[in-house]
Amino acid sequence: MEPHKILLPDTDIPEHWYNIIPDLPRAPDPYLGPDGHPIPPAAMEAIFPPEIVRQEMSDQRWVPIPEPVRQALALWRPTPLFRARNLEAALETPAKIYFKHEGVSPAGSHKPNSAVAQAYYNREAGIRRLTTETGAGQWGSSLSLAGQLFGLAVRVYMVRVSYQQKPFRRSMMETWGGEVIPSPSELTAAGRQALAETPDTDGSLGLAISEAVEEAAGRSDTNYALGSVLNHVLLHQTVIGQEARRQLEIAGDYPDVVIAPCGGGSNVGGMCFPFLNDKLAGTSVRLVAVEPTSCPTLTRGAYAYDYGDVAGLTPMIKMYTLGHDFMPPGIHAGGLRYHGDSTLVSLLHHEGLLDAVAVEQLPTFEAGVLFARTQGIIPAPESAHAVRTAIDEAVLAREEDKQRTILFTLSGHGHFDMAAYDRYLAGELDNDYHDGSQLKASLARLPQVT
Amino acid sequence: MEPHKILLPDTDIPEHWYNIIPDLPRAPDPYLGPDGHPIPPAAMEAIFPPEIVRQEMSDQRWVPIPEPVRQALALWRPTPLFRARNLEAALETPAKIYFKHEGVSPAGSHKPNSAVAQAYYNREAGIRRLTTETGAGQWGSSLSLAGQLFGLAVRVYMVRVSYQQKPFRRSMMETWGGEVIPSPSELTAAGRQALAETPDTDGSLGLAISEAVEEAAGRSDTNYALGSVLNHVLLHQTVIGQEARRQLEIAGDYPDVVIAPCGGGSNVGGMCFPFLNDKLAGTSVRLVAVEPTSCPTLTRGAYAYDYGDVAGLTPMIKMYTLGHDFMPPGIHAGGLRYHGDSTLVSLLHHEGLLDAVAVEQLPTFEAGVLFARTQGIIPAPESAHAVRTAIDEAVLAREEDKQRTILFTLSGHGHFDMAAYDRYLAGELDNDYHDGSQLKASLARLPQVT
Repeated sequence: MEPHKILLPDTDIPEHWYNIIPDLPRAPDPYLGPDGHPIPPAAMEAIFPPEIVRQEMSDQRWVPIPEPVRQALALWRPTPLFRARNLEAALETPAKIYFKHEGVSPAGSHKPNSAVAQAYYNREAGIRRLTTETGAGQWGSSLSLAGQLFGLAVRVYMVRVSYQQKPFRRSMMETWGGEVIPSPSELTAAGRQALAETPDTDGSLGLAISEAVEEAAGRSDTNYALGSVLNHVLLHQTVIGQEARRQLEIAGDYPDVVIAPCGGGSNVGGMCFPFLNDKLAGTSVRLVAVEPTSCPTLTRGAYAYDYGDVAGLTPMIKMYTLGHDFMPPGIHAGGLRYHGDSTLVSLLHHEGLLDAVAVEQLPTFEAGVLFARTQGIIPAPESAHAVRTAIDEAVLAREEDKQRTILFTLSGHGHFDMAAYDRYLAGELDNDYHDGSQLKASLARLPQVT
Repeated sequence: MEPHKILLPDTDIPEHWYNIIPDLPRAPDPYLGPDGHPIPPAAMEAIFPPEIVRQEMSDQRWVPIPEPVRQALALWRPTPLFRARNLEAALETPAKIYFKHEGVSPAGSHKPNSAVAQAYYNREAGIRRLTTETGAGQWGSSLSLAGQLFGLAVRVYMVRVSYQQKPFRRSMMETWGGEVIPSPSELTAAGRQALAETPDTDGSLGLAISEAVEEAAGRSDTNYALGSVLNHVLLHQTVIGQEARRQLEIAGDYPDVVIAPCGGGSNVGGMCFPFLNDKLAGTSVRLVAVEPTSCPTLTRGAYAYDYGDVAGLTPMIKMYTLGHDFMPPGIHAGGLRYHGDSTLVSLLHHEGLLDAVAVEQLPTFEAGVLFARTQGIIPAPESAHAVRTAIDEAVLAREEDKQRTILFTLSGHGHFDMAAYDRYLAGELDNDYHDGSQLKASLARLPQVT
């Protein structure tokens, strides 16, 4: 029978991460402090372990993956590469569609790939506790699990409205031993100030970041961990693309186009960077980051220095941004609501090496349902953005009557997003276009960098 | 590195199901009609396709799996066999613990293994619609997906209290195109009568069965599908044990003990029957069915003819039973609340070929949490029963300082059971012992068969 998936044994878990920095067309722009000068490594070590800080700036192309991290990854990696034969048949396309199923991880997405690496390096540095923030709970779940595997206590500041509305993600974190605190909390100065100003606030991801960083900066046994945007996070995710490349090789295939959903950039870095390595060496592979039209960072943002958080407390990052206080409408793909993007993803897009498309909410759910009904797996709404673009590419191949090999990341399953599917099936969702005037206003508030 | 899992390629999906009937120590007891005589095949064909009826009674040892069914299974099979190295280390046991991860199916459990086969045979018989019942939603989800894959409409009568309390399982069925009706409904005579008697009833699985069967019996384009108990369902599940046996062979191992959770018996049939084949041929493998102390069918039930449903509308089945109107306490492992058991599983237990143990609720959640914190995967509460028994065997091996190879089915993940984990972690669950006097009374109401 024709195979539906290509599997790799545990021994084929990559032995190195691929660091794209030495292969970039120019040096990446440094993170800047409030004084407009690059942040020195020592400053980052207040909240990150030395090895993570080193990776953030490293020009070493292949970074060895420590054996304990590979052992942790082996709990779910290598992930399967599927050929979406049923979807191809439903679309009557001559294209081959492959997807890399990152939803098989215990936390249900690609996020644990970096969480286990970060937990390991923190433990090696003698750290006993990690803090982080979480919105919908994907990253908080992943770090709770990783902390448990490496013997670290994990405290997760969870945006209060999510804490109240998504109790099952909270239960998941607690099952893995994580401590979940609704943010804002009384535990930090940032939290207390927010509560004093607005006692019934919903909280925000930016505020939860402030609380987690404040706690980590103030305790010598505690560090902070971030699940996207930063270079080391994208580095850790490159196991995805490396495995996919090897699996396609086994299938005797190579992609014409590689597609990943794009929020902060961890998926794009993970799936696309290993293929970018090929592209820089001369292959014609096309790389596509998919974002929502309601939060169109790469397609409509400015390429400028901006803060990573709403409150402007983080260093400034050179990136495509909608403005740090841009508030996207409440779309269901929470992981894609970020106003900015990884500085590496932004640089590559700016240099014309990485394409970007924006898709509307309803077509992504339509794609998610078609995918579920043909391939079985219900995609997370974030992942459904990549499914949508893969389907569009396959339909185009049909219209042009051209063979084409399409590869995308199915970054996670939708088991904790059924309320969103429910609303879609009930006809209660709309396309949530962004407000052009709001975008113009938030772009006008970008920080001035001399 | 030491492998954490053993994978098989799609081509190793078994080509036959293993039918244990010809290998039983005696012929299985027939299903009996209201007149006390065996149900003729023609009567079963009112609601089942001919091939399923044939399989129910077949003495053919190896039943070929049709290629379209293998193709459907390939969406998630072969499932991985994991060596639980982290759990072994946490228990400091000399035992090797392997588990077969059935939670990787799109519906999250082993149930789709039979759903796709049943959908296929119904389509081949010219059937256009299927009806079924569901409690927590595992079987209804599986059949909705299978119907979608084979072009059949699926109507699921969902116990009303679950319909109201578990909206996400309902959304999942609808995402796969299933139509979900809260039961009791106005669509059937059984439903209308129940509503007339008790307008605000919670509904029951027995009543939902009655509605689904009534509709299927009354429409020539519609059949009924059941997710456990019957011989053909257990037959379809034997892909589990066959794959596991092959995977252990690759690992150079053979189990001393094989463990499966037991509700209606589909898991036990699926995992244990292929090993029973070996046992009958002389190996010393021990087979263990695990049930909750609150619904102790095999360990405290009578071996007698009884109805399959609460209302006494189904044929009578020779089985271990607590009495068809035994009401177990509201334990969270809904899949294990059935009062009876497959006639094949019951026969094998009665003949001493299959052991049974009952475990309490709190130790199963304790085991589920330990499993999640070591292996990552959060088990369904049903599956946690098998985890508990595997841990007990591993601890015994440590105490006896004996090598032992333990194999169990992780029948499903717990993503839709986080409310139960939440209550466990909050200390709100107890052991839900069954009421001995209730058991005595329900056993006294067993039907009289001459």
